[in-house]
Amino acid sequence: MRWINFSAEGRTAYGILEGDRVVETRGDLFGDWERTGRTHALADVKIEVPLIPRTFYCAGLNYVSHLKEAADKRGEVPSVPDRPEIGYRAQNALIAHDEDVVIPRDATEKVHYEGELVVVIGTKARHLSEADALSCVFGYSIGNDVSERTWQKNDRTFWRSKNTDTFKPMGPWIETDVDLESLHTTVRLNGEPRTRFRTNDMLFGVARFISTMTRYLTLWPGDVMWMGTDGASPDLKAGDVVEVEISGIGTLRNRFVAEA
Amino acid sequence: MRWINFSAEGRTAYGILEGDRVVETRGDLFGDWERTGRTHALADVKIEVPLIPRTFYCAGLNYVSHLKEAADKRGEVPSVPDRPEIGYRAQNALIAHDEDVVIPRDATEKVHYEGELVVVIGTKARHLSEADALSCVFGYSIGNDVSERTWQKNDRTFWRSKNTDTFKPMGPWIETDVDLESLHTTVRLNGEPRTRFRTNDMLFGVARFISTMTRYLTLWPGDVMWMGTDGASPDLKAGDVVEVEISGIGTLRNRFVAEA
Repeated sequence: MRWINFSAEGRTAYGILEGDRVVETRGDLFGDWERTGRTHALADVKIEVPLIPRTFYCAGLNYVSHLKEAADKRGEVPSVPDRPEIGYRAQNALIAHDEDVVIPRDATEKVHYEGELVVVIGTKARHLSEADALSCVFGYSIGNDVSERTWQKNDRTFWRSKNTDTFKPMGPWIETDVDLESLHTTVRLNGEPRTRFRTNDMLFGVARFISTMTRYLTLWPGDVMWMGTDGASPDLKAGDVVEVEISGIGTLRNRFVAEA
Repeated sequence: MRWINFSAEGRTAYGILEGDRVVETRGDLFGDWERTGRTHALADVKIEVPLIPRTFYCAGLNYVSHLKEAADKRGEVPSVPDRPEIGYRAQNALIAHDEDVVIPRDATEKVHYEGELVVVIGTKARHLSEADALSCVFGYSIGNDVSERTWQKNDRTFWRSKNTDTFKPMGPWIETDVDLESLHTTVRLNGEPRTRFRTNDMLFGVARFISTMTRYLTLWPGDVMWMGTDGASPDLKAGDVVEVEISGIGTLRNRFVAEA
């Protein structure tokens, strides 16, 4: 099932995407909901950010090639994490499918994409075993962890390198029926495929992260976890259009523009 | 004015604290609200977390003595930040005044308090000058940035050292009438004063942080910024009671207990 957060006719609501129709619902996405009886053509609605997460988790280094490329560029030996350690991103930076990523005036040319699988948590969870970990997952979406590499290297935190307004496109919707093992991520720049990897080729998979995290913390409905990226990005500039496609979920598309 | 989030008679609501009475309200804390006509004795209500922030910001290193003590312990020369760079904490870890901080079974003895001023944002803000920065502030509260130092030193992120469930006590309420220059922070362990500093002796003050942050990001109503701490904490153990008092705001008290 595909859940889409959308605006139409002056309202914002969740709907179920059936083909190219959006079946409007009311109620709690993670609890009791019902169909309102209204439907809309997908082409007629504005797609919104799937949700503003309660806690916005993100795995920083979770694919071996991405780690190696990053280390090579610094002339260092890659340091591969020996255990899953989750990080964070910031709610302010979220934008929806088809909204623009705004490159700040003082950013360097080193603005990069990172196509990522997004896990949406649906039920409160603590102390889950790895075998039971996926029971708290509501569904999956797509994220682009846009990064300004010069700031990322020189700043003490990721506050502007990764959390500048518009730097976290997420969407276009949440897919609940996903076979993790079969997924492929493809990132296209201006229509041309540039990065491709098996989505589940993670150092630590979704279940391992959830199991480890819930030893110390409670996951809540509406939390999201971005799972990291593989490969490397070319430098992006105003006018570029980046599409992150994950097979079986959809395609998240955003244009990059210069700050006015 | 003191805003308190409380539960009583099966409801959770915001109230205005007048002496030892809680005047119940309904509506939007940051917008239109009204008094319901109901009041409660403060002693009869359960104090809740003032709010679950939209984005949970935290300044990591913002007082010179704290920086120097931390560096001395590592046998290093302190590296003093030359510009304000905000970090993040996680919503899962928040607890209210008088709720218990649970020390995980596998934590080392290096569990420390950090008494901090909390800034609550009340209006959407972008591109604020330092002179105008405080215009977006709704009020101030108190936080205890509980930290497990061994994990803080050895882990790649702060996910469990600072964001284990219950490690972020915040409260007891939000005070809107505050003169930053006059504030003093006092941290007491089992009733005995152990750390005391002028709250506003920050490397970078609230206005400077807000002005710098809003060059790149939008602050939203319900965002919070924890402003860092001064001094050092003794090692804490189960049974200890930590009180963080900030003059003019109140006292945040939490007991530390061992994980069952």
